[in-house]
Amino acid sequence: MTMNFTDRLRHAVHQRQSHLCVGLDPESDKLPRGLDRSPEGIVQFCRDLVISTAEYAAAFKINFAFFEALGHAGWRALEQVAALLPENVIRIADAKRGDIGNSAKHYARAILHELPFDCLTVNPYLGEDAATPFLENPAKGAFFLCHTSNSSAREIQHFPDRTQPLYLHVAARVAEWNANKNCGLVVGATHAEELKQVRTVCPELPFLIPGVGAQGGDLQTSAVVGTSGGAVPALINVSRAIIFAGDDKNFATAAANAARKFQSDIQLAIHESAR
Amino acid sequence: MTMNFTDRLRHAVHQRQSHLCVGLDPESDKLPRGLDRSPEGIVQFCRDLVISTAEYAAAFKINFAFFEALGHAGWRALEQVAALLPENVIRIADAKRGDIGNSAKHYARAILHELPFDCLTVNPYLGEDAATPFLENPAKGAFFLCHTSNSSAREIQHFPDRTQPLYLHVAARVAEWNANKNCGLVVGATHAEELKQVRTVCPELPFLIPGVGAQGGDLQTSAVVGTSGGAVPALINVSRAIIFAGDDKNFATAAANAARKFQSDIQLAIHESAR
Repeated sequence: MTMNFTDRLRHAVHQRQSHLCVGLDPESDKLPRGLDRSPEGIVQFCRDLVISTAEYAAAFKINFAFFEALGHAGWRALEQVAALLPENVIRIADAKRGDIGNSAKHYARAILHELPFDCLTVNPYLGEDAATPFLENPAKGAFFLCHTSNSSAREIQHFPDRTQPLYLHVAARVAEWNANKNCGLVVGATHAEELKQVRTVCPELPFLIPGVGAQGGDLQTSAVVGTSGGAVPALINVSRAIIFAGDDKNFATAAANAARKFQSDIQLAIHESAR
Repeated sequence: MTMNFTDRLRHAVHQRQSHLCVGLDPESDKLPRGLDRSPEGIVQFCRDLVISTAEYAAAFKINFAFFEALGHAGWRALEQVAALLPENVIRIADAKRGDIGNSAKHYARAILHELPFDCLTVNPYLGEDAATPFLENPAKGAFFLCHTSNSSAREIQHFPDRTQPLYLHVAARVAEWNANKNCGLVVGATHAEELKQVRTVCPELPFLIPGVGAQGGDLQTSAVVGTSGGAVPALINVSRAIIFAGDDKNFATAAANAARKFQSDIQLAIHESAR
């Protein structure tokens, strides 16, 4: 029997002894010196990053925005980078899709079938019938935006007030959509209090936690609360602080060192909280 | 001085005497007989549809899902179809994007700069700082999802209750984001009561109204309420009932006939309401 997505995620975290997700956000203007600012340069950049950081990562997350900005050649680069990701890690399409039934079905086909991703990020605004097409295959999953890491997150996500905010309603709804054990939530590290609340409402859902590193999110809280002290498979994503750790030809070594440090800091925080 | 997006939309509607948006949702399995079920077949299908329906349309809306499902060749087809759209209509990227600042900037670059679209659909869940990158150029715009046409729409969009639902909060927020006069709202034709409420909260924002045709939305109400009796530039989108009106080699003629009928039914409804 095929493992469901949550078990696959748990397995990857356990096997690597890592909750780190390396975020590939290859902004072409920021590529290290010596690399071509082209789709080919981006593929080379990502290939070297994947090779150098794979032993510290339970997951890789590819941000579609930076590929789409380069047109069809960018989409081809996306296909090439996706194909480079190891099969024994969780491969996340950070595409933030969300559309009504038949369109969602085609986005699911694009990302979970034509491309080799294990899961994607989805915007929950349209409700369950728009989520279902991403959840039909139990081995593949979706992380739904719940509380995002940006500073305007509260404007919509805290509506109507602090006692019953939208993001907790979303969390509760996603828990209901989880019949196939393949749902998770995106909860930003930059809002520690909200992270705790979502963990209380959803004690078992996997979290994808962006915002550590360049965005200044709290690694300690993210690690401990996000994983419920190690019991739940959460992924803590770090993008820029790893992939742009170096800006010259040694970028891959710098990235590996940064990834190793984040991986071990996360594990340490979890172990210390369990004492 | 360049016209702002709302004025460009008003101009297109006035010039064509049409509030019709033709939705290009080229699902490859449904292409008319005789067309190749390939990216090339899709481009040919869309080219013939654009030529045959352009005189009745104030706008064309391209649904990205059906192109992305075909990989990088699909994205190239998207580029080719986008380039075929007449410049004197409003060209809408139905991509439903929405991501934090720097990612949103790159989605904006992909769709409003690299591709020749005038506007796109955006998911409002992340709040204002995620919307801003799409709104910096007053000549280009964004239609934010407010109340969608699918049957699960109420699950999130009516939170927490009917007296102060989220979709009206979103409508009010988007009205605040409209400093450059380039914001609009997506409000489905399938929920007539909610359409009226959004129009009351936002008397002046342009609407993009999907759900007429195959989804069974109310054309009459959409036309009259959506345009405030002709005063506001609203677009009523019809996809399948036009593009799949015929299923053989005469599909373009069938589409033209369907588009003419929708265009005139909409105008008639508006004129009769104004008596």
